[in-house]
Amino acid sequence: MQIRRFYSPQIPVIDDTLLLPESEARHALKVLRLRPGERLLLLDGKGTIAEAELLDSDRTGRTAPCRILSRTLHPAPSPQFRLYVAPPHGKGFDLLLKAATELGVTQISPILCRHAVSKPESVSENWQNVLIAACKQAINPFLPQLDQPAEFKKALENASETSFFGAVPDSHANPLLPKLHTASNLALWIGPEGGFAPDEEKGLLLAGCHPITLGHCVLRVETAVPALLGLIHGLLKAPENL
Amino acid sequence: MQIRRFYSPQIPVIDDTLLLPESEARHALKVLRLRPGERLLLLDGKGTIAEAELLDSDRTGRTAPCRILSRTLHPAPSPQFRLYVAPPHGKGFDLLLKAATELGVTQISPILCRHAVSKPESVSENWQNVLIAACKQAINPFLPQLDQPAEFKKALENASETSFFGAVPDSHANPLLPKLHTASNLALWIGPEGGFAPDEEKGLLLAGCHPITLGHCVLRVETAVPALLGLIHGLLKAPENL
Repeated sequence: MQIRRFYSPQIPVIDDTLLLPESEARHALKVLRLRPGERLLLLDGKGTIAEAELLDSDRTGRTAPCRILSRTLHPAPSPQFRLYVAPPHGKGFDLLLKAATELGVTQISPILCRHAVSKPESVSENWQNVLIAACKQAINPFLPQLDQPAEFKKALENASETSFFGAVPDSHANPLLPKLHTASNLALWIGPEGGFAPDEEKGLLLAGCHPITLGHCVLRVETAVPALLGLIHGLLKAPENL
Repeated sequence: MQIRRFYSPQIPVIDDTLLLPESEARHALKVLRLRPGERLLLLDGKGTIAEAELLDSDRTGRTAPCRILSRTLHPAPSPQFRLYVAPPHGKGFDLLLKAATELGVTQISPILCRHAVSKPESVSENWQNVLIAACKQAINPFLPQLDQPAEFKKALENASETSFFGAVPDSHANPLLPKLHTASNLALWIGPEGGFAPDEEKGLLLAGCHPITLGHCVLRVETAVPALLGLIHGLLKAPENL
């Protein structure tokens, strides 16, 4: 059976003990009914993954103390990948957050675009929980940073990535691959289902974004995210960029 | 407002009339409450997209006669793209079918793998409906062909694609890009969440598949499909392949 995974923002050194966060402890004890002595995998979302052993609970039966058996610090992903995306409505954003986490995106910045149907004012706790669950599922050592939603124009003004792609119609033959490969941080901008407004598209191109598209069909945002991330990885893998 | 899209396996010539299929007629008249004179977009799933005008219904109010105003035959996608995939359980396969349709996959072949949780014996009508809905949503002129599930070994024996990729660990630096570009039909093989069994993986490599992976995390099949399709498009777009 697969070892169960838990999120713990702090992971102590080997042989030290910690208490799982309350919701994780409840899941371990009440839902999964794990017993003392069982092995767990702990992720701190900051690069460390540890193996731990569940110890005896106290008399309340509500805490889950663990002893660290081993721990590994993973190197930060390179290049860092930031996703600027107009949140789709409903469950679409959850699917998108999951896919981005599985594919190693390091930062997710919701942008408020003119043609967007959904314009959330702040990050919901549920989104954070989706990201944590996705990290555990994907065994991703790095929890993506989720920013507060920002107006498109403000987000573009503040963007500092050295190379970035935009899901806008492609008038050029190819993005500038050699330049990309040396970039230590990349960004991908994806608009709402209705697409970027003309002035948003113009702003992206003026700021130097590489336009990318995939196929001839209308893509839902939750498909565009994994497909375009894959496309960029493919462009970066091209032999002259290795 | 966006023009409504309907699936009609037969589309006659301009000025001829047709009756929408029963379920599409019900949707047009009872759900959307479209009125005579309104414009519709019709897709036959075989490359033709037509604009049509809704005519007066007969006395039953259950048929939706339309007159064709214009029609366009789209060229078949090139290269043709076939997806061999172990169906995930639950809603995952629906998500995967949608993403594959948006990304222009022409044929989807469910494969039954050793480590699969779900081993459907036949294609369900629901899957076909998901594909039709996805074609309408994505305005994809070509309805992907959905095959009956086949045993992995039999599917591999019968595969005739000139170039193919497998989601298996990558021991080589790069797939053979120049060879790919000239291929008129490509295939991508994706195993179940547990991965291909060792002999399945060996079979793929012996048959000459190009191994591809993306990132270091565990991908759900419904993420792997759009991400790896995007990756292949990126590899094909690399400058020396244009």
